Amino acid sequence: MKARVHITLKNGVLDPQGKAIEHALGGLGFHGINDVRQGKYIELELSESDRAAARASVEAMCEKLLANTVIENFEIDLDG
Amino acid sequence: MKARVHITLKNGVLDPQGKAIEHALGGLGFHGINDVRQGKYIELELSESDRAAARASVEAMCEKLLANTVIENFEIDLDG
Repeated sequence: MKARVHITLKNGVLDPQGKAIEHALGGLGFHGINDVRQGKYIELELSESDRAAARASVEAMCEKLLANTVIENFEIDLDG
Repeated sequence: MKARVHITLKNGVLDPQGKAIEHALGGLGFHGINDVRQGKYIELELSESDRAAARASVEAMCEKLLANTVIENFEIDLDG
């Protein structure tokens, strides 16, 4: 089973990487960009075939390693 | 309009960051993980309201700045 995890900064947390991208895009002549936020995207290929067990396991991975839950949210999508 | 961009390494391109995550998860006692790939996730808030124009503009941004198209693929989703 494949799990896709999106890790994004919580609202209100400053995102200097996003601001740098926004600034660089402006410098390249792209206008009309109001905001840019950068997050992480992780694909995991799991041997677990039970959806509920896979979700619980990926949630534990996010809490323990993948995301910093003080400043980041995570979202898990399973397929396959 | 909001654009969500996923930037992932092409198949066959080594992903040391993904391997490091896989190894760290193994060390934390998570087993049954066959592969981990890490990519980037970027959210852009655009003032453009025409979907076709917004997509064309985000594609140009990906090609010029956001993605390294030699080794990375990008995927654009628009909503709003």
